[in-house]
Amino acid sequence: MSRTLPVEAIEFLRRPQHAVIGWAGKDGRPFTVATWYDWDDGAILVNMDAHRRRLAWLAIGAPVSLTALDADDWYRHLSVYGQIARVADDRDLADIDRLARRYTGQPFRNRANPRVSAWIAIDSWHGWSDAGPWHLAPTP
Amino acid sequence: MSRTLPVEAIEFLRRPQHAVIGWAGKDGRPFTVATWYDWDDGAILVNMDAHRRRLAWLAIGAPVSLTALDADDWYRHLSVYGQIARVADDRDLADIDRLARRYTGQPFRNRANPRVSAWIAIDSWHGWSDAGPWHLAPTP
Repeated sequence: MSRTLPVEAIEFLRRPQHAVIGWAGKDGRPFTVATWYDWDDGAILVNMDAHRRRLAWLAIGAPVSLTALDADDWYRHLSVYGQIARVADDRDLADIDRLARRYTGQPFRNRANPRVSAWIAIDSWHGWSDAGPWHLAPTP
Repeated sequence: MSRTLPVEAIEFLRRPQHAVIGWAGKDGRPFTVATWYDWDDGAILVNMDAHRRRLAWLAIGAPVSLTALDADDWYRHLSVYGQIARVADDRDLADIDRLARRYTGQPFRNRANPRVSAWIAIDSWHGWSDAGPWHLAPTP
């Protein structure tokens, strides 16, 4: 499904936007937190400290939402809805370094804690630009 | 419960930060979208177009999450978790004008669509500052 994300939206996500990830607990309570992410071959890569409680929710198939705010113009933003397609230990911290370099230009500072990567497959999205819906042309 | 939010967190929320609201659909799917908000007498005011589909989730008692990113330093952010405590028609658009002025300095442009306000009562929160948890001192 993520193949259908319009090219303009992918270009937007390829830039290091400010992003918030959302998920729901078992009791249906929503949680949101700021996150780094990257566009990775048709999915969205995120990475977490392996000791975080939130990891419990982020199993394969878990529904996830992510809102990316344009770092230069926060009246342009894109929300994507999907589910966790893959989870993998980030054994050599390659994924978190990739994210840290993308956002800060430097490798990730904390080398002590184990990390886990997750990839979000996108089912649907909603964009907003200026003062109305962002009309993203379908990819031909 | 929202009375226990530390003063430093309230001061943070009083500034017009970039924010994303999260909620869960009936099937447990999370949704996130960028939003204006304001701190309003112990709760968080948000305001929506009354025709939006998302209104269906935002009933009194519905659990809600909101992450506010520091507009000047997005490595400081605060996530609050709570539930909708009050919902009211924004008949004269006073609430959306308040939010629009806070963020843009101008009244809200679109006067045609009816609006609804909701107030989020906060149960818990999580702050992040620089590269670690934001240690918010409890209010004395």
